[in-house]
Amino acid sequence: MEVPLTVNEFLYRSAVLYPEKLAIVDGERSISYGEFQARVNRLSHALLASGVRKGDRVCILSPNSHFFLESFYGVSQIGAILVPLNYRLVAADHEYIIGHAGVVALLVDHEYVDMIDEIRPSLPKVETWIVAQEDKQAKPGWTAWESWIDGCSDSSPPVPDLNESDLVSINYTSGTTARPKGVMLTHRTACLNAYNFMVHLQVSHEDVELWTLPMFHCNGWGGVYALTGLGATHVILRAVNGEQIFELIAAHKVTFACMAPTVLNTILEYPDRANHKIETRPRFVVAGAPPPAAFIKRLETELGWDFIQIYGLTETAPVLTVTSIDSLTAKSDYERRSRAGIPVLGVGLKVCDDSGQAVPQDDQAIGEVCARANIIFEGYWEQPEATAAAFRDGWFRTGDLATWDRSGSINIVDRKKDVIISGGENISSPEVEAVLYQHPAVLECAVIGVPDEKWGEAPKALLVLRAGSTVSAEEMIAHCRENMAHFKCPKSIEFLDHLPRTATGKLQKYRLREKYWGDRVKRVN
Amino acid sequence: MEVPLTVNEFLYRSAVLYPEKLAIVDGERSISYGEFQARVNRLSHALLASGVRKGDRVCILSPNSHFFLESFYGVSQIGAILVPLNYRLVAADHEYIIGHAGVVALLVDHEYVDMIDEIRPSLPKVETWIVAQEDKQAKPGWTAWESWIDGCSDSSPPVPDLNESDLVSINYTSGTTARPKGVMLTHRTACLNAYNFMVHLQVSHEDVELWTLPMFHCNGWGGVYALTGLGATHVILRAVNGEQIFELIAAHKVTFACMAPTVLNTILEYPDRANHKIETRPRFVVAGAPPPAAFIKRLETELGWDFIQIYGLTETAPVLTVTSIDSLTAKSDYERRSRAGIPVLGVGLKVCDDSGQAVPQDDQAIGEVCARANIIFEGYWEQPEATAAAFRDGWFRTGDLATWDRSGSINIVDRKKDVIISGGENISSPEVEAVLYQHPAVLECAVIGVPDEKWGEAPKALLVLRAGSTVSAEEMIAHCRENMAHFKCPKSIEFLDHLPRTATGKLQKYRLREKYWGDRVKRVN
Repeated sequence: MEVPLTVNEFLYRSAVLYPEKLAIVDGERSISYGEFQARVNRLSHALLASGVRKGDRVCILSPNSHFFLESFYGVSQIGAILVPLNYRLVAADHEYIIGHAGVVALLVDHEYVDMIDEIRPSLPKVETWIVAQEDKQAKPGWTAWESWIDGCSDSSPPVPDLNESDLVSINYTSGTTARPKGVMLTHRTACLNAYNFMVHLQVSHEDVELWTLPMFHCNGWGGVYALTGLGATHVILRAVNGEQIFELIAAHKVTFACMAPTVLNTILEYPDRANHKIETRPRFVVAGAPPPAAFIKRLETELGWDFIQIYGLTETAPVLTVTSIDSLTAKSDYERRSRAGIPVLGVGLKVCDDSGQAVPQDDQAIGEVCARANIIFEGYWEQPEATAAAFRDGWFRTGDLATWDRSGSINIVDRKKDVIISGGENISSPEVEAVLYQHPAVLECAVIGVPDEKWGEAPKALLVLRAGSTVSAEEMIAHCRENMAHFKCPKSIEFLDHLPRTATGKLQKYRLREKYWGDRVKRVN
Repeated sequence: MEVPLTVNEFLYRSAVLYPEKLAIVDGERSISYGEFQARVNRLSHALLASGVRKGDRVCILSPNSHFFLESFYGVSQIGAILVPLNYRLVAADHEYIIGHAGVVALLVDHEYVDMIDEIRPSLPKVETWIVAQEDKQAKPGWTAWESWIDGCSDSSPPVPDLNESDLVSINYTSGTTARPKGVMLTHRTACLNAYNFMVHLQVSHEDVELWTLPMFHCNGWGGVYALTGLGATHVILRAVNGEQIFELIAAHKVTFACMAPTVLNTILEYPDRANHKIETRPRFVVAGAPPPAAFIKRLETELGWDFIQIYGLTETAPVLTVTSIDSLTAKSDYERRSRAGIPVLGVGLKVCDDSGQAVPQDDQAIGEVCARANIIFEGYWEQPEATAAAFRDGWFRTGDLATWDRSGSINIVDRKKDVIISGGENISSPEVEAVLYQHPAVLECAVIGVPDEKWGEAPKALLVLRAGSTVSAEEMIAHCRENMAHFKCPKSIEFLDHLPRTATGKLQKYRLREKYWGDRVKRVN
């Protein structure tokens, strides 16, 4: 018998089986699985009453919150498509994405309402403006979430015919090209990624997850679905803060968390650990960039907690690989455990040269990681050319360069495109360069990632000025901060006579990076 | 991207990732994952050379063995359909099934070759006769497995276009009705059951499974796929024997086993446990019938091992429900832990009255367990009427009677056809059996309905006593009357040497009833 795989089943299951169990802790607020489903049902009814229908796009712009978790299910339950926005982007980015995705309803955290109001005139298609706040009194032009859903029924909404190939979300990448691209994920893809998440990260109903990962980031890597489906507990973290993380781990007996290496670093650097009495032994799942081996060692030896490394992209739903402790990988082999690792169930993976042939599995030859799996996305929303370019012979090209060994374990060594990953966020160097080029003094520029203790990598601008022009590094950074999200701004500036280029005029960024990365094999932390 | 879910992926993955890891231990023979895949490839080439093509049916008749494990993958890899036979059936049953399924190739364990030769004249469609034995010298008319695959290539065979809706196996039910029925399972169904098996039974690459369950039984409940996909180790057990079970657990550091309650009983009754030094703490997964709570208590308190109860049917691939220790179920609540439990991921379950309406979730009202899920079978092979009768409004009717509670946890009270109706009251035979098992003299028991002039039907207990124990019928009836409602108590007692069981340990109550019901058509009032 074939029944469509849909993410909605995950919440239905736990609401039926564990109605009184704690589903969400968000600050002072505690929500049981029964209440979680009831609030999701009310949200679905409110969306329907606002005219949202199957296939419509609904944006959420919010830090982690119970509203965000509810939106995943409230939106997908009626067959609408969630578009989670990266809250670190600037208004112009949001304007582009909301317009490109053709969004009809906006769910916005109270902190971001003013920012969205700036671009409101450019969003003629949006009909529903909801502010996520506990208070029922909203800013003019907005409806408070709680008053919006207040009169709505707790019961199941009418559910449209859903196929597993229907879209569940469009997750915009924060841009390895100038413009973000909308990664289309289906219900089937999200479900099978969630199954892999459960199996390989050994999730159970006893888990308590601390949300050290932004939910917008590829639907919390699938944790939104996996933890819910098994009836585990979600503990919300709104912003990364060492003290609060330790407090929440202690108070709620946290067993599980996902994070970028930079968050792991924050946790390791937090000075007052000894003040917190932690009774659990959490598993920390790290991805976004390979963490330094020293981080793993410190986590396991100083804190006594467990480390798991995974690797993937938004386009892969995201979990492609996992490193586990096995016959090839001793627990103390922190270097090996910082590798991307071996493919999860159902993932075909190969490391290819430019012709699509697999490179030798000798951990020396470098090639591009290519994947074939149900967890691969359907394409970029309304970008058929970009979609076509992302695939070759039915294999998705990740754009990541790696070596692999005989066991199929991969080790990421560089980004094929020159994306900079800083604090878990992708920064597109052409996008930063475009802002630099707006300054009249700039003749040529290149932005590269350089090692940064706190962020893993930080953007650095290398500038060639126009003859006769002068500008200070401080002035250039100020110019950038006025024109784009702060996390994308160069943290340092260097002035050069010229930039190295190939005969055809392409920048040779790997040569620029050499100076800063020395003789390290890896160009990406 | 949609890639067909096929069981073949499970072995491919582990063969690539863990080529040197121990995949199978079968007596003196140890097989790595690399060799497992190589032998499977040779088997596929041999089948192709023998003319077997996609969609053809291939039978295996064998106790657990490495050959059996290899046949799952060697057959499905080329798109053929495996028909695993129950080795406890008689020649006439095999003749019926092989003919009904239209089998073209037979893989037969050396012990069963003579039995099959008896029916050979009635099997005109079978073209390939292979005997599973280590020796290359076979009985005339047969080809030895090892010589058959000997010249074949280790490399991947040509793989046909496989859809996930293609059949992977036809598993004949062990016949609680006159004729076995062929349960059709697809690749999709087998894969999703395997995922559930991994998630809910917390399987990992570190597991070592002892095959206390016959592999023919619904493909080892999916363990054939789940354990292989994660690179765990299979330890073969050819026949159930207490001493050998303890020896293998100790020698191979077994962590996991699936079994019927009767096998669990064998393990609990084995007298020389103290002679074996067991360093692991295995998880025992039990299904096939609800085990008495006393079995769970003894396993966990006397042996210190872990118990998990699941419930399902061949028609459900099979895992429908699982009991776990959670907020509603204390570890020491052995009574509750012997329930069938809560539905696994993706399973819709309801307990219905005869009109298909859900009965109250009060754990009192009895109804039939009905299920809707991807793990439900496609129908009975070439039996459209039986298939139609098995479903109502898109729900599969399990034929099992149960109560359910508010959390959705179900408690099987009896097979629909085994329930005793006495004076208009339903009597659950497992409930009466549980009380009988509380008596120290009882080794095995079965309660059936027998004709009764006054009540229509009355419960009768058939008992096998422990060696050296004596107890009178009057004492047993008195024991029952002290411990349960009088109308449920056996009105008569009979002492037997053993009870008739199916290969999977299920009591064959229809055979017990025959003696008392004579030639009446109906066995149940």
